Amino acid sequence: MSCVATFSLFPLERPDQGSFAPYVARTIEIVRESGLAHELGPMGTVLEGDLADIMRTIKQCHDDMRKECGRVYLTLAVDSREGESGRMRGKVDSVGELLK
Amino acid sequence: MSCVATFSLFPLERPDQGSFAPYVARTIEIVRESGLAHELGPMGTVLEGDLADIMRTIKQCHDDMRKECGRVYLTLAVDSREGESGRMRGKVDSVGELLK
Amino acid sequence: MSCVATFSLFPLERPDQGSFAPYVARTIEIVRESGLAHELGPMGTVLEGDLADIMRTIKQCHDDMRKECGRVYLTLAVDSREGESGRMRGKVDSVGELLK
Amino acid sequence: MSCVATFSLFPLERPDQGSFAPYVARTIEIVRESGLAHELGPMGTVLEGDLADIMRTIKQCHDDMRKECGRVYLTLAVDSREGESGRMRGKVDSVGELLK
Repeated sequence: MSCVATFSLFPLERPDQGSFAPYVARTIEIVRESGLAHELGPMGTVLEGDLADIMRTIKQCHDDMRKECGRVYLTLAVDSREGESGRMRGKVDSVGELLK
Repeated sequence: MSCVATFSLFPLERPDQGSFAPYVARTIEIVRESGLAHELGPMGTVLEGDLADIMRTIKQCHDDMRKECGRVYLTLAVDSREGESGRMRGKVDSVGELLK
Repeated sequence: MSCVATFSLFPLERPDQGSFAPYVARTIEIVRESGLAHELGPMGTVLEGDLADIMRTIKQCHDDMRKECGRVYLTLAVDSREGESGRMRGKVDSVGELLK
Repeated sequence: MSCVATFSLFPLERPDQGSFAPYVARTIEIVRESGLAHELGPMGTVLEGDLADIMRTIKQCHDDMRKECGRVYLTLAVDSREGESGRMRGKVDSVGELLK
């Protein structure tokens, strides 16, 4: 099984009023420690792996952010199918081939 | 902690070509068995509870659908904050008060 | 054509730090004025109609909120298909029939 | 005003049963013709610009796909705020700085 997922996690209530960047950076650190294939984008972070690992990692990011922030918002989308891994890049490449 | 979540889960590849309703009905059965507070809507199912329980239940729904369907799509949004439960209705009621 | 949509719109930066309820109430007022079929839920508002009307209405809600709030977040999901209207309730009813 | 958006558009009912890649490629062609800054990712396409232009372009993609497909699904998330453009890359760069 291969799950490609994108998630976004940010505070709705927090002790400071500055940029979200430090919160996102902390999330990416936790994702890196997970060992999951990942890619940071402007509107979310893409992960690839087992759904159980993906959910565990996102929950860690959530729990970490909730320690500091009274309210957080999380969105997740998952494309789950049979087959080999490497779809995170494969999905983009297969479209790119058609656009050449 | 109280998490209010909405999720949507549907097949992208499947053995039949009929309505999605039987797939959604099976998902709702699994949600009912979880004991989580829930509410079926036209575009997703709302759950309330601990994030761990919410994720476990949604993963069960996913795993069940993947037994029959070669590819499925899942979306999830979570509003997580301090405080008591009962927010699933409370969030709507607090807006309704202002609209009277 | 019938589009059933769900959207969520909330401030990320705003002049106050209270509940989101007054912002959601203002959004619902704009939705009511649009004449679109709608239903307020705990995690978003469901609309049914033409995609052009749905997008125009959501943009009005966005523009209105941005007058007061320096940053807002919007999510939208649309299920668009052939056929008659009334799917907002029909989708739920067809699952409910199977669960009896 | 600067809106950074990510959207995903795919068929739920369609005349063929192959890869989604040709559908995504057609969507990207329409996005390219729009002149909006954009970036194709594994789980969606990021756009930056005015919300009206973003919505118009996504509606064109939707209308084009609906010509061939009896049912399509669309998701959209928008981060809308004051300020200069270039946030599509700026958002990622500001996190990258903190991760160095």
